[in-house]
Parts: sequence; structure tokens; C-alpha cells
Amino acid sequence: MAKPFYPESIAVIGVSEKSDNLGKNIVKNLLDFQYEGKIYPVGQTEGYVYGLKIFTSVEQITSKIGLAVFLIPAKAVPDHFEACARKGVKRIIISSGGFSELGEDRTDLEERLLSVARENDIRFLGPNCIALINQDNGVCMPFVRLSRFPNGRISLLTQSGGVGLSFIFMFSAQNLGINKYVSLGNKLNLGETDIIPFLEKDKSTGVIGLYLEEINKGREFISAVRGCTKPIVALKTNTTVTGNRTAKSHTAAIANDDRVVDAVFKQLGVARVSELDDLPPACKIFEMPPMKGKRIAIITPTGGYAVILADLCEKYGFTLPAFPKGFTAYVSKHVRAGVINLTNPLDLGDMFDLQMVANTVMRALQEEEFDALMLSWIYMRDTGITIDSINIFPLLDKMLKMIPKPVVLSMVGNPADIAQLQKTTKYPIFTTPEESIKALKILYDFSTSAVSLRTQEPVIKDIDEAKIAKILDAAAAEGRKELGMESLDILAAAGIPTAQTRLAATAADACAAAAELGFPVALKIASPDILHKTEVKGIILNIANEKECTDAFVKLTESVKKTSPGSKILGVHVQKMAAKGREIVIGAKENESFGHVVLFGLGGVFVEVLEDVALRVAPIGPLDADNMLSEIKAKKVLGAFRGMQPADAEAIKDILFRVSTLVTKFPIIKELDINPVVAYETGGGCLAVDARMILG
Amino acid sequence: MAKPFYPESIAVIGVSEKSDNLGKNIVKNLLDFQYEGKIYPVGQTEGYVYGLKIFTSVEQITSKIGLAVFLIPAKAVPDHFEACARKGVKRIIISSGGFSELGEDRTDLEERLLSVARENDIRFLGPNCIALINQDNGVCMPFVRLSRFPNGRISLLTQSGGVGLSFIFMFSAQNLGINKYVSLGNKLNLGETDIIPFLEKDKSTGVIGLYLEEINKGREFISAVRGCTKPIVALKTNTTVTGNRTAKSHTAAIANDDRVVDAVFKQLGVARVSELDDLPPACKIFEMPPMKGKRIAIITPTGGYAVILADLCEKYGFTLPAFPKGFTAYVSKHVRAGVINLTNPLDLGDMFDLQMVANTVMRALQEEEFDALMLSWIYMRDTGITIDSINIFPLLDKMLKMIPKPVVLSMVGNPADIAQLQKTTKYPIFTTPEESIKALKILYDFSTSAVSLRTQEPVIKDIDEAKIAKILDAAAAEGRKELGMESLDILAAAGIPTAQTRLAATAADACAAAAELGFPVALKIASPDILHKTEVKGIILNIANEKECTDAFVKLTESVKKTSPGSKILGVHVQKMAAKGREIVIGAKENESFGHVVLFGLGGVFVEVLEDVALRVAPIGPLDADNMLSEIKAKKVLGAFRGMQPADAEAIKDILFRVSTLVTKFPIIKELDINPVVAYETGGGCLAVDARMILG
Repeated sequence: MAKPFYPESIAVIGVSEKSDNLGKNIVKNLLDFQYEGKIYPVGQTEGYVYGLKIFTSVEQITSKIGLAVFLIPAKAVPDHFEACARKGVKRIIISSGGFSELGEDRTDLEERLLSVARENDIRFLGPNCIALINQDNGVCMPFVRLSRFPNGRISLLTQSGGVGLSFIFMFSAQNLGINKYVSLGNKLNLGETDIIPFLEKDKSTGVIGLYLEEINKGREFISAVRGCTKPIVALKTNTTVTGNRTAKSHTAAIANDDRVVDAVFKQLGVARVSELDDLPPACKIFEMPPMKGKRIAIITPTGGYAVILADLCEKYGFTLPAFPKGFTAYVSKHVRAGVINLTNPLDLGDMFDLQMVANTVMRALQEEEFDALMLSWIYMRDTGITIDSINIFPLLDKMLKMIPKPVVLSMVGNPADIAQLQKTTKYPIFTTPEESIKALKILYDFSTSAVSLRTQEPVIKDIDEAKIAKILDAAAAEGRKELGMESLDILAAAGIPTAQTRLAATAADACAAAAELGFPVALKIASPDILHKTEVKGIILNIANEKECTDAFVKLTESVKKTSPGSKILGVHVQKMAAKGREIVIGAKENESFGHVVLFGLGGVFVEVLEDVALRVAPIGPLDADNMLSEIKAKKVLGAFRGMQPADAEAIKDILFRVSTLVTKFPIIKELDINPVVAYETGGGCLAVDARMILG
Repeated sequence: MAKPFYPESIAVIGVSEKSDNLGKNIVKNLLDFQYEGKIYPVGQTEGYVYGLKIFTSVEQITSKIGLAVFLIPAKAVPDHFEACARKGVKRIIISSGGFSELGEDRTDLEERLLSVARENDIRFLGPNCIALINQDNGVCMPFVRLSRFPNGRISLLTQSGGVGLSFIFMFSAQNLGINKYVSLGNKLNLGETDIIPFLEKDKSTGVIGLYLEEINKGREFISAVRGCTKPIVALKTNTTVTGNRTAKSHTAAIANDDRVVDAVFKQLGVARVSELDDLPPACKIFEMPPMKGKRIAIITPTGGYAVILADLCEKYGFTLPAFPKGFTAYVSKHVRAGVINLTNPLDLGDMFDLQMVANTVMRALQEEEFDALMLSWIYMRDTGITIDSINIFPLLDKMLKMIPKPVVLSMVGNPADIAQLQKTTKYPIFTTPEESIKALKILYDFSTSAVSLRTQEPVIKDIDEAKIAKILDAAAAEGRKELGMESLDILAAAGIPTAQTRLAATAADACAAAAELGFPVALKIASPDILHKTEVKGIILNIANEKECTDAFVKLTESVKKTSPGSKILGVHVQKMAAKGREIVIGAKENESFGHVVLFGLGGVFVEVLEDVALRVAPIGPLDADNMLSEIKAKKVLGAFRGMQPADAEAIKDILFRVSTLVTKFPIIKELDINPVVAYETGGGCLAVDARMILG
């Protein structure tokens, strides 16, 4: 994968002397960024650009070509692609648009490229992109002219070239160095799943920023991120119906279920940002040392910012411990007027001596009570208040080296001044309090959990695979794709506690089964044709005695004949009524991109009305299960609630692991819905009461 | 209220020749901003500042003083305040800090100021503020030196001086003119409730921006905003426990219930922003004509922005209708290459001719299908692509004059370039897509609903006041502050349908009552000492016959004797079981600042676990009731749900109006909780089943 970033020579296909030729810009960028390899412009007509000869075909070039970048009409691409293959070029970038993003009829073009690539062991980027940049060697191939920008530890992968360009502008303006930049486009061959593993090994890259409109190879994405120890920050768009209509015609992007994407990012410790503007600060915060706890000390020059920051800390789960006595004694000795409360946030208000501010910051930093410090500052010039904010940067730099805790500088003031400071200062400057705290949360999450999330071992439970296979095979032999109550047998074989159930063909059988199981029981219509029993009035609950049981049998079979005529009726399932507990829902469903996704939620309105569910891609690990239980909005219900002790979390997680194992080992199960599972108080376990399954 | 903004002369109290004197800055600001009235510096020592004589007391000044601004230690303020009173000064600004924000012991100081003000008919701003600015006459009194900044249609009221200063910087940097600026500080006398009505009349003010840490006079705030026809944009902080601890020591702010604040803003069409950075664009959007519908046409130069904008439109409830045929025909005639999809958003990609872009915008604007247009643009210089974005502004300006629809320009690129453009261009420039769409949503909401919300007449229902007074008086006579089932009698008198209920002292009475009402019934323990009947196991539901009724009576009275020993038991309430329907909760509670707040939510877990409630301050109007029903997260339950027809919205709203009327006419009711109200299908009405009340 290193090759496209380190080509020994580059052929630029699509260059002419014409003034509006865009291919020429690629050549100029390579020259301006001081690429040291050979550059071979190729075009339809001979000539010269920037002192370089334009060849009319790659065959004319006698030397070896490390990489070819195309900027020619889509229909001309395959021929040139084949010419490159013949010439032995192994890395190609197709910047041209006009492929499947314009419609299904263009997929032929793409198939041809893919087949030539396969036959000739070629890897290619694009089409429909603006190529890549590597600041380590001056490889800069966008067809938009660029000025030199700072090199640094951040590498960006972006599906949209235009959005990626904006990021170059935005990052550079904040003196945030971009080391490598890749415009992914339609991702026909190379995508983020190929490049992330390369960036993990790349010594120049410290932070990976992503702009994605789709994750089309979800499983590979998960593997790529699991192998990565570096911070990854992602902006993923195309989250709505309208967005997808648009993305399809932009980068031919598929529509991901955004709840799954969100779950995957949580599962992998990928920091997801929601707005364009959030990406630079989210990458910038990694210029700071790790943040290992939640405790922040805040120093501000004005009470309003103290209030805003205090609100934000609570909102983002940080704490503001009181300052230790030694610190408050120190500050009160040096404050000008007596109008300061020595609380955290500390409103320094009247302290206009910058050295003194720096000393105060340093003093606070030494306190073990704090894991990070935020210095909120108003940058003022010519305000009649003696302050020269600019001198604070060397002081802060020195501190960071002495005490490795994050010292976040949040600076507001005249935006032009702040922009100028950001552009010229090495020390990272954040602007609004909101920006700073959001970024700090990203640092905290990465510092405390990302690597353990990515490297957790999945929990694979011992399940009776032979028995499960037998039930599934039987269904397959009968051509049945949907399983009702026999799903419970599969779950039982997977080690999940299920309500005791008997099939009864007659009312008398039902009564006998009920007597054996013990009243009260439930009767549920047994038919291979009926999956949604409630909809056809196929369930009667709380049957207390034989008479009710006989009546229920008759009522059920007759009502179902009416509501679902023609269904084959085997009789009823007699099930011992489960004792009362919390009803939860556990399930799994195959996702086109990511494979099987495990679902957890509370029963009833929580799932049905509020879609309050937690998702994770199978197989799940111990942290995933913990997080699923704690991330639902209604998690309060799982604690001590309405006179009940907390729910048996271990038993719930055990079912999650078993479901995760089941669908991992039997991917033929496309959909599994255990609803309800009754969860009892801690130690009391769980009971799966009803379930259905769809097979592939 | 105009006086502090238009003083004929100003005394600045707290000026000296010393280099670190801050009072001097006030004088300099007045001179720099070309205040034309007389300026009288007053200090402890005679001398001169900026050529003006320093008086040592206000008494020395022979001419009339229109306004005095104080910047002296808190303890010295009262004496000078009295001196000003003697001198006949009617308007004072106390910039000094050190009052109740530092602790309860300083309230004496404040009491003294208030009493002198009362006796002498003085109105004053502050303490603990940075005074005010009026750009119409050069009154500029902050003690921080300011450079001249643009005048315009926006006036800002801000509780924090520091945050307010940042806004001056931020607004000015975007060439957004601020006309009046008021730093409110501790709001001991004058506050936003006094100044909003003045700004409504003020011809120079077109938009009002607020930064508030508290709304301490909620009723007055509501009146002030109801009388205002101008857009109001508010950033309200101090929303958390931590924030409140901090705000108390900053501006001595009280803690508002943020859910109530949020409801009040919705009720009044005040646009609430959540971040500091959101205020300038939210004010700026009002430079545009009103937006009268939801339909947007989007034109972008890159597909990535098209995707982002499409997502945002869906998220914020806008629609993107297809372009009419005439328009697409026009565009396809003028596009350079065939790589464009003629969809909305329109990715112009290859169209680099700016006049052509402008023509396209103009053409789209003429289409009746659209209520607003967004032009997303990447500003590029020296990129090798022929584009000169700067020339677009005059074209856009011309368009707005011809067709009064919003044309929002969202411009990304090098932030320094964008900042420079914003600073120098009259046409409002927004940056990220998120910023633009959020601002447009604010414009849309104001254009379509703010004035009707503010001017709606409350719905006052005819209720049996005499009967209600009688029940309340009886309770008062007995010294009871908490009412249980008799609350239902009050509700019935207020015209709210309630479940039929009988008090029964014995089991036999209970059976007789049940027979009269008709089985099944519920028995509920009747005791003036027991308000929460469920907690003491004081309710038995679904009693089917006389035997069950007798058993239930015994069981109830005995169990309550155990769970609530010593309670006076009157017997039981026998209540006809309500037919099944949706359970909802309706209530009201007095709020310290805003008065009575009416609450609506769904019963059970929705309120208990998810706090999914809608609030409005009483008395409520028709739009309020509609919005309450539609703003709960689980509103789906009110529609066709689980085989039920939609709930009877008219009947629910009728109860809301009656509760609103009840607490408005009987403010002695501090808290009212009707739980549950059973709501039936449309036309079926509602039934209040249980209720409790707390009296003041």
C-alpha cells in the first residue's frame, strides 16, 4: 500500500498546453511541492508544460512509471488504463468523474477497469476523486492548484474531493499540519479499508481523519480499525433519505443504516463528529498528552465563560473538583482586588499580569486533583487593559513538557486576531468553550477506552452446534425460511434459558401439557405459516385451569382460521407463564455492509415507539455488552425500579454473547428476534418467552 | 427607558490620572465614539484626563447630569449614589462588581441602593456590568477600550460583560452592525424585561440578541416578549447544577428550571441557540427577507456539500423539491461537461463561469417551487480554476431586491479569506452548511410562527369558580395543604370529565356503591393523610363482584394500617373502572420565576423514565396546546397505534385549557397532578381517573 504514496515516477495523463487544461495543475502541484521523482505529462498533442515534454502515449515513455494519474473523459479511461497495464504500471489514480455516480449504465466501464486491474495486479484509487498528497516527498496530485501548507501528524482520507479541499484550507489556517491526504471518490478498488492499515504503520501519521459518505465494506472497515492504535476521527454523512439520493449521484455511495454506523464507531472507539467544523479541533486535541481522568481545572478571565464552561463540563461528564487549599492560598496572595471567588472554574477577572496567570496555571497543573486544565482566555488588543496574550504560548509549551497533562487553551476575541494567532502559533489554540470541551471529550474517550475497545476479545460461548444445525437443516429441507416457536429450541441449544413449551395437537393434549408444566399457562397457535401470532389473535395468556385451557384451544384455532385462512395449523404451543419481570428485547440482524448486528432494548413502547435500542456488530466483546446495557436512554429501568431490585445484568449479557455466538457460527440466520425476554432481579436470570427467526 | 441610551451629559465616577485607572477608558470610549454631550470625569483627586477636568464630587458639577456611570469599589457606591440622587441624577449605571455575587452579606449594600432609587425615582443598570453602548449617538461606556465597530440593526443585551465583549468582536468581524449594547450584570434594578419593550419601539433595532444567565422575572419576561414583533435570539446558559454554582458567584443569578426556560422560548417564538458561535449567524439571517415555506433549492460546486446539505435539510424539516423542467433545460444548455445530475441539490461542479452561476441562481429563484435558495460555494484563489468569487456579491444583492426570498450564501475555503470577505462584504456570508441551515431554520420559524405565537389569545374556559372556591376554602379551614381524591371534584367543577366516584365507609357501603356504579370497580383508600396511594398499597383495581369488593375493602384497610400506621382512614373511594385507552398525564406546577406551568405527557414509563413531557406557562393559547401534543417524543402513541384510532386530541386540549384556566384563577393551587387521564379514540373524550393537588 505504500506505493501510491511513494512513486519513483509519475505519469500525468490528460495534459495539454491549453489555458483551461486542468491536468496541467497536477504537474504544477508536483513541481511546487518539490516532488523529486520524474514527472511525465501525457496528452493528445505534443508540447511542453512547465518545461516538461508532453508525451502522446505512455508507450512513448521509455523509463519505468511508478504511478499514473488520469484526468481524461471517463470513456477514454479504459484504453489508457490498458496501455498502462501493458507498460507495467501497478498503481493508478483515476481522478476523472463520469462513472457509476452518473447511473447504472456506466458500471460496464468500471467492470472493465476492475478486470484489467485483477489480471495485471494493479491497485487503483478513484474514479471521481482528486487524487492524493504525501507531504513527506512532495507527491501532490489534485487537479486544483494548491499552495504549500503545513506538514504535521494528521492524515486525512476523504470520499469527497471538495470537502477534502475545504479541510486542507481549514486545517492549514489553524497551523495544523496534514501529512497525507487521500481523496477516495467512488472507491472502486482502493478504499479506507486499505489505507487505514497503511497509515497505522506510517511513522509520519499520528492522527487519522475521515470524511466518508458510505462504509461499503463494513467487515473490512472493522478489521482495519481493530488493527489501528491511532486516534481516528470521522465525519460520516449521507445519513438521511435525501442525503442518500444525493450521495448516490456524487460518489455512487450506498446507504448505510446510520444507527449501525454509529454503533460501529462506538464499538471501535472512533470519534464521530457531526459537523464539518468539528473535524479540525477533534484532530488538534491530539497534540495534547493523554487525558486519563475526568477532573478538569478551569481558569477564565470572565465569569460568563466560567458559567458556560461549567455547564459544558457537566453536560460532557467532566467534573470540576474544588481547588486544594494550597492552591487557593497561593492565588489569594496574588490577586489584585477582593472580587474573586476561589472556586473551580476560577474567574481570574482582575488578574491582568500574564506571568502571574501562567504561574497560576502551572500551580494548578501540579495538583493531583486534576487530569486536565483549561485556560479560557479573551484575547484583547488596545483595550486599555495591560495584557499581552501572545507571550503566554512559550510558557504553556514549557509546562506541557514538564507535566504531561492536557492544557487546553480556549481563546476568544476578535476572530481575525484569533485566526492570525492560530495560523502562526505552534501551540494549539481552540476558540469557543464548546469547541474546547467537545475536543477534550474526544481526547478523554480515546485516552481511556479506544484501544481496549479495539483489542477486546469477542466472547464466544459454548453452544450445541450439532443440535442447532439439525433444526436448521430440517427447516431448510422443508424449504422454510421463517421459524416461529422452534426458534426457542435453537436458543435453548445455544444455552439461552427459554420458557418450557409443549406442542399440543388437541385440546386434551393441551390440558395434559398444561397440567405437566403447571398452571397458569399461555397457549400460542402453532403453525409454520404464522410468524406474527399477535396479529392473527393467536395468543391467549394467563390460562388458569383445564376449563379455560379447553376453551382457549377452541377459541384460538377458530379465530386463526378466520384471521389467517389457509394456514396449516399443527395445534398450539402450551407454555408455562413466565413470572413477572422486566421485558426486554434481544435480537440480531444481518447488515449488508457490516454483517450481523446484535440488538438490545427494553420491551414494549421503548423499542416500538422510541426505538431506544443499542446495537453492536457480532461477535461482541465484554465491553460491548456493558456499553449496550448502559447506552439505552431508558437504562434507569434496569436499575432498582418500581420496587424491583436491579435487573440481572450478567444474565442479560450472557444472552447477548450467546446470540452473538449463534449468528456468528450460523450466518444463515439473517434475522433473530427474541421478544420478550423476561429479565429477573440480580441472580434471578432471564427467560426467553417468544422468538422468531428468518433464514437466508 | 430611552434615557440611559440618550443622556444629555454623562458623569464618569471613578476616574484618575493613574496609568492603570480603568474609569479613564470610559471617558476615552465616549470621546472615540464621538459622544456629543458633556462628559464629567469624577475622581478622588483633581487632575485632567484627555483634556477634561476631573471633579472630586458630583456636587462640584454645576450643570445638569443626565447619567452617571460608576466604576469605584462596591463599598463606596452607596455614598456616591446618594450624592447623585441629591444632584437629581435619574439614570445611573453601576459597573463595579463586589455585590451579591460575592455572597449574601453584600445584599445590604444592594438594599440601600434600591431604597435610594425608589425614593428618588432613579432607574439604574448593574451592578457588576460593563455598561451600555448606543451607536446612534456615540454613548459608549464600557471600561474596556473599544475600537469603533459597525453600526447596524442588531441590539444585544448580555448579562455577562465578558461574553458581551466577545460578541462585539464576533459580530464586528462579520460586518454585522450592533446598534445598541447593554451589559446587564446583576440586574438589581433594570433588566431585559425593561429594555426589550424599549428596543421594540426603537427604530434603529431590527433584531434583538440575548445572552442570559437567568430569567429572574419570568412573568415580566413573557409580557415583554409578547409585546415584541421583532426577532429575538437567545443564548441562555446556567442550565446545570455546576453552571448554577458558578453563575451565582458571577452575576448572582438564580437557577431556572431549564425545561421551563426552553418551553417559554418555544411558547414565545424566541430562537434559542445552544452555542456561543451560533448567535452571530442566528442574528445575521434576519438580513434576509422572510422565508414563508419549507422548500429550498440548493446550488453547490461540489457533491460533498450537496450530500451534507441534503442531510441537513431533512434533519431540519426542509424539503428539496425537484427542479422544474424549464429550469433543468436551461441549466443543461449551459453546463460545460456532461457530468452533472440535474437534481436538487444541484452540483454545478464544472460550472466555473460566475456570471453563469449567478444566472442559474436567479433562474432558480424565479421558480415558484422554492421558498429560499442556498448557494453553497467554495471560495478559492490561485487554484488554477478560473473563478473570481468576489464578484458574486453585487449580483446577489441585485437579486434580493428583485425577488424577496432568502438567498443564503454558504462559503467555505481558506478561513482567513472567508473572514476577510465577511468583514468587508455587506452581503451576509455564512460559512459551513450546518451554520447556514440552522440559521435558515431560525428565519423560517420566525417568519411563519413567532408573531402568531406571541399574540395568541389564551383560551379561558368557563369553570364553576364558586364550587371550586368552596372546596378549596373547606380544605383551608381544616389546614390541609394536600388534596387527594377531592381534587377530582375540583376538576369536575372545572369541566373536566372525571371517573364516577363514591366514598364508602364500610364494606357494605362499598358494595352498594359498586352496584350503583356498575362493576368492575376500583377501590382506593380514602384518607386525608395519604396522598400517594400506590406507595402504601392503597389501590385495588378490576373488582368484578360483591365478594371481591368485600375482600378488597378488608385487604385495603388492613394493609394501609400496616404501611401507613396512624393515618386517619375514612373508608374507600369506589370508582367505576375506566374503559381502556391511552393513559396520559396532565398537570400544573408553580414556577418561582414564571408562575404556573402546565404539563402534558404520556403515562407510565414515558414520564417516569424518559421525562418526555411538554410544558407551557399558563394561561395557554390554542397554538400552545397544539404544540404540546406534537412536541413529545412519543407523539406516535397519540396517532393510530396498536390497532387504536388516533387519540381524541380535542378532548385532551380541552383539559389542558381547563387546567390552565384553573391554576390561573386559583393560584393557591401550587401543584396539580392528574395521573392518569385516560384518553379515548377521536370523539370518545377523556376521563380523569386520579389526581392530587398541593395548595399554597
